[in-house]
Amino acid sequence: MAEFESTPRTKVKRAPQRAVYERETLYGILDEALICHIGFSVDEQPYVIPTIHVRVDDVLYVHGSPASRMLRRMASGAPVCVTVTLLDGLVLARSAFHHSMNYRSAVVLGVPRKVTEVKEKGVAFKAIVEHLTPGRWDEIRQPNPEEIRKTDVLALQIEEGSAKVRAGAPVDDDVDYELELWAGVLPLNVVAGAAVPDPALRHNLPVPETVSGWIDPQRRFDLSP
Amino acid sequence: MAEFESTPRTKVKRAPQRAVYERETLYGILDEALICHIGFSVDEQPYVIPTIHVRVDDVLYVHGSPASRMLRRMASGAPVCVTVTLLDGLVLARSAFHHSMNYRSAVVLGVPRKVTEVKEKGVAFKAIVEHLTPGRWDEIRQPNPEEIRKTDVLALQIEEGSAKVRAGAPVDDDVDYELELWAGVLPLNVVAGAAVPDPALRHNLPVPETVSGWIDPQRRFDLSP
Repeated sequence: MAEFESTPRTKVKRAPQRAVYERETLYGILDEALICHIGFSVDEQPYVIPTIHVRVDDVLYVHGSPASRMLRRMASGAPVCVTVTLLDGLVLARSAFHHSMNYRSAVVLGVPRKVTEVKEKGVAFKAIVEHLTPGRWDEIRQPNPEEIRKTDVLALQIEEGSAKVRAGAPVDDDVDYELELWAGVLPLNVVAGAAVPDPALRHNLPVPETVSGWIDPQRRFDLSP
Repeated sequence: MAEFESTPRTKVKRAPQRAVYERETLYGILDEALICHIGFSVDEQPYVIPTIHVRVDDVLYVHGSPASRMLRRMASGAPVCVTVTLLDGLVLARSAFHHSMNYRSAVVLGVPRKVTEVKEKGVAFKAIVEHLTPGRWDEIRQPNPEEIRKTDVLALQIEEGSAKVRAGAPVDDDVDYELELWAGVLPLNVVAGAAVPDPALRHNLPVPETVSGWIDPQRRFDLSP
């Protein structure tokens, strides 16, 4: 896949050795994250709001109520920033100074467009459900025309973005390696517990395999052997 | 603890039944989150960057390199938004439309100040390490004057903020409860794996209890019986 051009706005200035501009890396991070944080400004005040997203090809979709301030702002022609962050571990160095996190983050900048075609809205709805729970779309009651009408979908073309990745062991000052202090990484993962059936279930239905066998996106997209 | 005044900027408009303005709830969310996302604007373009934070009383601290664009922007007198989000589960409804997430999020708005006193910087450094790994501060090599000098600390007074919480079972349309479709919640948790010692450890040191017995903040701050 192609690389992104590093623009003055997306060039990673701090710890540039952690910067990644390959589309494949960026997309892997966007796909693995269950939520994103969207930044937009109103009257000079920035706001950061979490929401569910999905990537389809080179487009990032989010959805919500037409009454949402965030969605209205996203449809206004103003620039936004969509950021996702995956926390992979605590980096426990010998010195306080070199304590850090292992993480992968992706930032996409741009001006979203409001999706008006019902067909494209349908693509986004399905992709969002499938992103959270692969296989579930075919098991549930799909959106009716009224629901489609009263849900706004915003699309952000992924043209300007960058990723930042920190992985591996702590890096301490040379002299500190002599200290008798333990250092290392504590890996962190998102793990699903046992499914909790809706108390209002009127039928004695078993938990479907799409839920009981839910694979967290980290393992779903893990390409390591 | 006192409530926040709901300002026009922090009043939760979408799903207002999910809004919480109690300081205690907001602080619990800030304390449980290992990272925050900071929103700031440069030339009309919003940016959202993840970073480590900590709350000490009514102040939120973040730190980093003086060369960081985010920290420079935070010290410039411009307003920022700090958001943390805890993902508690996938809400799997009968209808695609009512699929959702259980989450707790907190938003704090304000204009940060740069911390100049060495003593307050020290408070922030210790709190950040202890937030990630309680008990570790006393086990590691603490910051020397040069490290303190070359780390910027920004403080945001927690005066204007709100929290949003969604918990519990899916809520479907009345007619959909008749459908023979499973619905419920799939809980999600952050879990630590086995500690990975730094390959450069020169001494045969055991993993300290502060790391091997690491309790994720969700359980650390869980006040339920």
